[in-house]
Amino acid sequence: MAAGTGVFAEILDGDEVYKYYHDGEWKKAASGKSVAIINPTTRKTQYRVQACSQEEVNKVMESAKSAQKAWAKTPLWKRAELLHKAAAILKEHKFPIAECLVKEIAKPAKDAVTEVVRSGDLVSYTAEEGVRILGEGKFLMSDSFPGNERTKYCLTSKIPLGVVLAIPPFNYPVNLAVSKIGPALIAGNSLVLKPPTQGAVSCLHMVHCFHLAGFPKGLINCVTGKGSEIGDFLTMHPGVNCISFTGGDTGIAISKKAGMIPLQMELGGKDACIVLEDADLDLVAANIIKGGFSYSGQRCTAIKVVLAMESVADSLVEKVKARVAKLRIGPPEDDCDITPVVTESSANFIEGLVMDAKEKGATFCQEYKREGNLIWPLLLDNVRPDMRIAWEEPFGPVLPVIRINSVEEGIHHCNASNFGLQGCVFTKDINKAMLISDAMETGTVQINSAPARGPDHFPFQGLKDSGIGSQGITNSINMMIKVKTTVINLPSPSYTMGGSSHTSKL
Amino acid sequence: MAAGTGVFAEILDGDEVYKYYHDGEWKKAASGKSVAIINPTTRKTQYRVQACSQEEVNKVMESAKSAQKAWAKTPLWKRAELLHKAAAILKEHKFPIAECLVKEIAKPAKDAVTEVVRSGDLVSYTAEEGVRILGEGKFLMSDSFPGNERTKYCLTSKIPLGVVLAIPPFNYPVNLAVSKIGPALIAGNSLVLKPPTQGAVSCLHMVHCFHLAGFPKGLINCVTGKGSEIGDFLTMHPGVNCISFTGGDTGIAISKKAGMIPLQMELGGKDACIVLEDADLDLVAANIIKGGFSYSGQRCTAIKVVLAMESVADSLVEKVKARVAKLRIGPPEDDCDITPVVTESSANFIEGLVMDAKEKGATFCQEYKREGNLIWPLLLDNVRPDMRIAWEEPFGPVLPVIRINSVEEGIHHCNASNFGLQGCVFTKDINKAMLISDAMETGTVQINSAPARGPDHFPFQGLKDSGIGSQGITNSINMMIKVKTTVINLPSPSYTMGGSSHTSKL
Amino acid sequence: MAAGTGVFAEILDGDEVYKYYHDGEWKKAASGKSVAIINPTTRKTQYRVQACSQEEVNKVMESAKSAQKAWAKTPLWKRAELLHKAAAILKEHKFPIAECLVKEIAKPAKDAVTEVVRSGDLVSYTAEEGVRILGEGKFLMSDSFPGNERTKYCLTSKIPLGVVLAIPPFNYPVNLAVSKIGPALIAGNSLVLKPPTQGAVSCLHMVHCFHLAGFPKGLINCVTGKGSEIGDFLTMHPGVNCISFTGGDTGIAISKKAGMIPLQMELGGKDACIVLEDADLDLVAANIIKGGFSYSGQRCTAIKVVLAMESVADSLVEKVKARVAKLRIGPPEDDCDITPVVTESSANFIEGLVMDAKEKGATFCQEYKREGNLIWPLLLDNVRPDMRIAWEEPFGPVLPVIRINSVEEGIHHCNASNFGLQGCVFTKDINKAMLISDAMETGTVQINSAPARGPDHFPFQGLKDSGIGSQGITNSINMMIKVKTTVINLPSPSYTMGGSSHTSKL
Amino acid sequence: MAAGTGVFAEILDGDEVYKYYHDGEWKKAASGKSVAIINPTTRKTQYRVQACSQEEVNKVMESAKSAQKAWAKTPLWKRAELLHKAAAILKEHKFPIAECLVKEIAKPAKDAVTEVVRSGDLVSYTAEEGVRILGEGKFLMSDSFPGNERTKYCLTSKIPLGVVLAIPPFNYPVNLAVSKIGPALIAGNSLVLKPPTQGAVSCLHMVHCFHLAGFPKGLINCVTGKGSEIGDFLTMHPGVNCISFTGGDTGIAISKKAGMIPLQMELGGKDACIVLEDADLDLVAANIIKGGFSYSGQRCTAIKVVLAMESVADSLVEKVKARVAKLRIGPPEDDCDITPVVTESSANFIEGLVMDAKEKGATFCQEYKREGNLIWPLLLDNVRPDMRIAWEEPFGPVLPVIRINSVEEGIHHCNASNFGLQGCVFTKDINKAMLISDAMETGTVQINSAPARGPDHFPFQGLKDSGIGSQGITNSINMMIKVKTTVINLPSPSYTMGGSSHTSKL
Repeated sequence: MAAGTGVFAEILDGDEVYKYYHDGEWKKAASGKSVAIINPTTRKTQYRVQACSQEEVNKVMESAKSAQKAWAKTPLWKRAELLHKAAAILKEHKFPIAECLVKEIAKPAKDAVTEVVRSGDLVSYTAEEGVRILGEGKFLMSDSFPGNERTKYCLTSKIPLGVVLAIPPFNYPVNLAVSKIGPALIAGNSLVLKPPTQGAVSCLHMVHCFHLAGFPKGLINCVTGKGSEIGDFLTMHPGVNCISFTGGDTGIAISKKAGMIPLQMELGGKDACIVLEDADLDLVAANIIKGGFSYSGQRCTAIKVVLAMESVADSLVEKVKARVAKLRIGPPEDDCDITPVVTESSANFIEGLVMDAKEKGATFCQEYKREGNLIWPLLLDNVRPDMRIAWEEPFGPVLPVIRINSVEEGIHHCNASNFGLQGCVFTKDINKAMLISDAMETGTVQINSAPARGPDHFPFQGLKDSGIGSQGITNSINMMIKVKTTVINLPSPSYTMGGSSHTSKL
Repeated sequence: MAAGTGVFAEILDGDEVYKYYHDGEWKKAASGKSVAIINPTTRKTQYRVQACSQEEVNKVMESAKSAQKAWAKTPLWKRAELLHKAAAILKEHKFPIAECLVKEIAKPAKDAVTEVVRSGDLVSYTAEEGVRILGEGKFLMSDSFPGNERTKYCLTSKIPLGVVLAIPPFNYPVNLAVSKIGPALIAGNSLVLKPPTQGAVSCLHMVHCFHLAGFPKGLINCVTGKGSEIGDFLTMHPGVNCISFTGGDTGIAISKKAGMIPLQMELGGKDACIVLEDADLDLVAANIIKGGFSYSGQRCTAIKVVLAMESVADSLVEKVKARVAKLRIGPPEDDCDITPVVTESSANFIEGLVMDAKEKGATFCQEYKREGNLIWPLLLDNVRPDMRIAWEEPFGPVLPVIRINSVEEGIHHCNASNFGLQGCVFTKDINKAMLISDAMETGTVQINSAPARGPDHFPFQGLKDSGIGSQGITNSINMMIKVKTTVINLPSPSYTMGGSSHTSKL
Repeated sequence: MAAGTGVFAEILDGDEVYKYYHDGEWKKAASGKSVAIINPTTRKTQYRVQACSQEEVNKVMESAKSAQKAWAKTPLWKRAELLHKAAAILKEHKFPIAECLVKEIAKPAKDAVTEVVRSGDLVSYTAEEGVRILGEGKFLMSDSFPGNERTKYCLTSKIPLGVVLAIPPFNYPVNLAVSKIGPALIAGNSLVLKPPTQGAVSCLHMVHCFHLAGFPKGLINCVTGKGSEIGDFLTMHPGVNCISFTGGDTGIAISKKAGMIPLQMELGGKDACIVLEDADLDLVAANIIKGGFSYSGQRCTAIKVVLAMESVADSLVEKVKARVAKLRIGPPEDDCDITPVVTESSANFIEGLVMDAKEKGATFCQEYKREGNLIWPLLLDNVRPDMRIAWEEPFGPVLPVIRINSVEEGIHHCNASNFGLQGCVFTKDINKAMLISDAMETGTVQINSAPARGPDHFPFQGLKDSGIGSQGITNSINMMIKVKTTVINLPSPSYTMGGSSHTSKL
Repeated sequence: MAAGTGVFAEILDGDEVYKYYHDGEWKKAASGKSVAIINPTTRKTQYRVQACSQEEVNKVMESAKSAQKAWAKTPLWKRAELLHKAAAILKEHKFPIAECLVKEIAKPAKDAVTEVVRSGDLVSYTAEEGVRILGEGKFLMSDSFPGNERTKYCLTSKIPLGVVLAIPPFNYPVNLAVSKIGPALIAGNSLVLKPPTQGAVSCLHMVHCFHLAGFPKGLINCVTGKGSEIGDFLTMHPGVNCISFTGGDTGIAISKKAGMIPLQMELGGKDACIVLEDADLDLVAANIIKGGFSYSGQRCTAIKVVLAMESVADSLVEKVKARVAKLRIGPPEDDCDITPVVTESSANFIEGLVMDAKEKGATFCQEYKREGNLIWPLLLDNVRPDMRIAWEEPFGPVLPVIRINSVEEGIHHCNASNFGLQGCVFTKDINKAMLISDAMETGTVQINSAPARGPDHFPFQGLKDSGIGSQGITNSINMMIKVKTTVINLPSPSYTMGGSSHTSKL
């Protein structure tokens, strides 16, 4: 089945423009305007989506607000049941959704399928996690605190925040959308999804799977449109009670406008890979390829700078070069390893970093090559701190190697970054591994593996400019609730008694 | 599909005797001996099961021990996947299994189906709960304790106990078996199930559903036979690493022989129902019927004594009488409310309690009537503490009412029992409800409802002679594991650092 | 011992102006400027504090940042030891500090002493709570999530945020300062305290107790000055990594400027007291006095509107009137119940609300009376939703009663507020108590007692405009840390094994 | 101050026999009989204690039972306050108590003082830990489980077990007593302490510190006497609701008699030290000295067998020999490293193991030497599995080295033991460390350090014959409570609502 056909025909306006989703229905923007989505490989318009207006956003917010009140009164197991259903439908339709990912963001075909399947697993896991988190509060006694008798019993409940605004990025538009949708829904919130332009059609297909699962009207909504028209309008909308955003610098701007609502933000990183002298260099090389070049480096948790001890750097660079040489470069439909980057401006930005490094004397391990949005994988050796690529995120298949003369130098470079998402260290030594991990100022440190977001139940967070709050399934659910307490005040102290006599023994 | 046919044909030895389950296969006892199961309604032999020998038990223990080692190395999600499969197969075959319950223990037909369905839900919930409990330990720092630097990191894992011996009772042979099997398996243990005689064939059918799900050979085993031959032999077997038992006084004897292994025991109760003057008497009467007469009172958590304030007792007794009059009495196949009790000796015991009460002057609200194992429901008013029925558990459709003149009198009677399973109190007053609940020495106090084991994720435990340990899905899993710690000792103190500078703001 | 004498002489610049605290030393502002603090009772200048400049704030931020790095490497028990020491010194010097509270904010003398003592207890409790929270993380296994073997062990640590900016309000300047300082310090953060103008000298005395306890230089800092000069400068300072604020609307403004840092805010409330027909009216009246008029109503959690069922309203109002008549009105030094409100502008604002209610027809249960900042206690009956006092927070000894004809009307009024701090409901009925508590949209609902912040280990939070985040000792500590994870990647799956054979039994 | 003088004079009967403690008073046994305590160094009677009768035990049990009921109704902070007081008094009187330890069990003087101080810290930590554990239960919702609406709220409390029987061993009579007393008391239990004969007088002094702290009468009791007279009588006493035992094989016998009460048992170990080829041999040697010879090897967690890779064994043995040569041997009063073992029969048992090893060809790294109970430290190289010392616990300064040719051989030897307390592995390799730790079937594995019970908040447990349950402060408290649940049943579903509108933004 192809995208936009079969059960998905409904979401398409006469083969032309994909509709937006409001109050349980697929709708066209009243203005008749639409936004084009350019295929990164062909560089031609692949799809069109509705350009919603502020008025349409207002209506969406109203639906979301009203649907949430009823949803918050739905038993946890019923919420979970619907999520399981959505997860199954999502996995069942992995191929048409993957097709969108290939066409919109040039994700290699197999990886695109994997993203959808992993998303289904994530939704199911989230459902069961939420049943447990939401179904359990604390029961506190007053007499823990000096001066109090046990006359007060405090019961803590977890209540939904209200309407959650979810803004996923282009690189995992389905997976990073459901990682916000799942927690929001199981926790009793309603949802307004604003997909990235590139990835919007994948998102709309995914949302339709939730539609087919039978969620109440208005609970899930998805608006598309121009950032200039509805971007700030959405993030500053008084009806929004929580923002979960993954993306770039925009996040910082949002945080300054959002006001007094909980924010969950993941804004990119410059993940370092520190390589010690005793590291297993084949393991390191394999991880650099996987960590640095998967999906052409367009991952938040990609390895973005290698900090290798001078004594092993030559050998390591050789090993990585050998593996780079085997990477397959070309269109995502052919399952190539390196595919075109998402937009022409991205490709230009990457090229800018490469040219800067060239001018300042970096060693090119491969020849620099670009065709349209397709950039050949490039390892840059002997990068120095005065080069932009030592600090900036290329989000492309271009990886700098900085040679270090001490572990401290490596830690210092890592910690001098304004980012603090993940980092990794390769060493066999247990003491060094633990001490360096403790010293690296990033949200996660991977010992002997490349940075990675998953498994999805692990906490995932960025320090400094890399984000606020913590993600991972459990943390995301906890982020989308608030504590409410009920205190039962008794007229006299009461202590729960148990029977201690084992009379049968007498 | 009928019991012992279709997929279940395999568990039956030529239409005659049900086989036992060892090392992934259905087997006949070498001795050729069998044990008869009497249908409580017809009082004729309904089924026969194998009479296993001690030697056969030894082989079963060996298989269980060896299978457990490999199972403990199976990923949690795979364990869960198999349990979900078994749950689905169980629910799919609810009718043949329910048929066994009707024939073996005279459970009303609809309730029998419900037991199987609820058991499937329990297994699935247990799988997901276990994934979370088992997948998470603690990470402790040495510098919490005075005098220590942070040089030691302690990681706590949860490890399986080994071989779990599960002994469920006759009244919920399927549900109380899976409430032990599910936690044991997800936690990485292997299992030896010893079903009750009455209920054995239901258990064998249930075990076959696990077999069909594809669990590894030897992981689950089920032996049948005479208690005199293999009872103590099993409970004292050195290969057993945990006993989970639900039943009667036998449990106390087991606890004195079992030695140094974890015990989870639930041994019955004498659940009191305290009725205050402000109670909603219709609600109370409805709960007394449900709580006292469901499955003819053969439930651990049945209301077994009503303690009613004198001022409302007349009115309450009238309301209960009116509802008793509407109970349908007869065979389980007709879905009657009151069906024959499980054995003739049970019926005789109940009759003994009734006659003792009669002699000592209790008021019979209905005429006492019995045919074979079928005893008509009976409410006994004006019961006094010198009557046996004030303290003993009839496990039949016979319920004493004691009139009290103060709340304290009610609490005192409840607490004077050697049992301490559950109790309930009916009052609208929030202060009285909380204070009385705190004062009642039972494992659970229900405010404004009859005692109940479920929902199955709630903790469930008996005080005093009612048991040791706590059940409910979460607690049962925790009971079937042990903590193991790994301490990483570092050469120098190490504190995990985070990056605190928000450089983008500068 | 008097304020500013004895050990406190050091914090005073030649009997004239109180110094600010930077880098472990008491200092004078370079500009020589100071800010006057007006005694609410005498309406004359009581004290003067330094008017710090932006440059001085910059230096303070630098000290705080640098001190934090070392503090984060201090063993937990040592951090706790220093906090216990500070708590003891604080309690030892309760009288001079209480004297400041009397003079600066007209707190009744006994209550002022209580505030200091309770603050000491809070600091000690926080120390021990932190030792436990900070010393324990999670240890997670990869094989919980579908598709993963157990090759990844995830260790979660709790790391400090960095520099915490604490801004307490005037009404509990000591207690609400230490409720931020304690959690910040035990969690490994450093602190910049910006006290309220009214309450600044109390804060400076309190800070000196921490100084005397021997905390490292620069870890704790306290700057005073004009809001117009250093207010926004502080809250928007890039060196700040967390803001904990208690106060009024300023908080909303701060939240819109603060950017991507964690915020803990408590911004006031309009706590409703719903009185049902079955309530114990003497209990209600006593709680209305305590809840509505303590410290002249200048409490976030004061009862700020009574919603009484019409049928009991007359009787309730009579009982409250009788108790109001017994309140002692006058200067705080005499331990009067009602003392002057904090500033003249406050008194004017309160008067405005009263006059508005008068014009619109509210019933005055007492005559309105004011002398300077001293306002006589006033109960306003028959208040209607069109009066400002039905919605606005007087923060004075002035309490409106709205008569309601149904519970739903009461809940609706409560939920229509833009605030959602606490609320209370008085009823004996357990069902109504729980259902109404669940329905009231406030951070806490007190059943049968006035709203209250304590005991201090209970969670404390406001919904809607009443705040973001949750306080209470445990939650405040958790708010001032961030999770960091270390993932140990193994070359092959590894499952923790336990020994299951009880060989001694063989 | 000397033992039995000053405040301790009260516990001594006219300079002759130490009294036992019952119902808040120091008493003499009615029979006038006493038990002698032999000083291991002088081998002469050092002290005498009362020989209590079964009747006296009965009275003690009655007092304990009755005192517990009131204690369970004491606010947590008050319980903690008394424990803090006892801890302070204990530390204040460290010298007289240490003197008893020196005389009764020949503990080196400095270590004796350390034991008392560490015990005080443990009691304080336990108090604060208990305030938190006991003051918090769970609040569970019914609608997590399929088929349920949210009509049931379950509150879980932690209730005391009743009377705890504490039986510490001779080697840490004070510390291992308070590690049972502290948890028992904070959790609301009462206590009957049965000290070891050797160590009884230290215990009585310690108990007096609790007496001086002002605990209620009857709450803490201490009986002394002959095992043959009151041993089984105590452990099988129907008034006992929990047994916490540390010691040897007696524990297994107790577990078979105790019946249905919770048991916490720690019964010794044969802790292995696996040394890999990449280990830091100086670190290993230092840890073998500390781990194997401290307190002459009379520690549960002593290293009791070294399993060294053949390739490093020679070098390791040399390094250990060099350090053994520096150990000071002699009386505990001189703070010698090696002091007389606790009894002559112990010394004889150790000698038996040594002689068996000699006959079977072990290499003696030092000459075997013994004077009375004093045994010179001895390292036995080339020990083989056919020697008793390869498997049995000497509990003396005698340490076997087994040379291994593979890691698997070491793990196999460790796991073949019937004990499973702790073990340690020395390697720098992070992968090997984790994999071996997971494979060793002991309650704890120390990576790169000798086994150790502390820090006292870490979990501490033995597998197989080494024990049941888990200790460490947190686990011990949790072991001495039971869960009780209260279920509030509502007439209709109720979901806690929160306010989601941020009206101020509108």
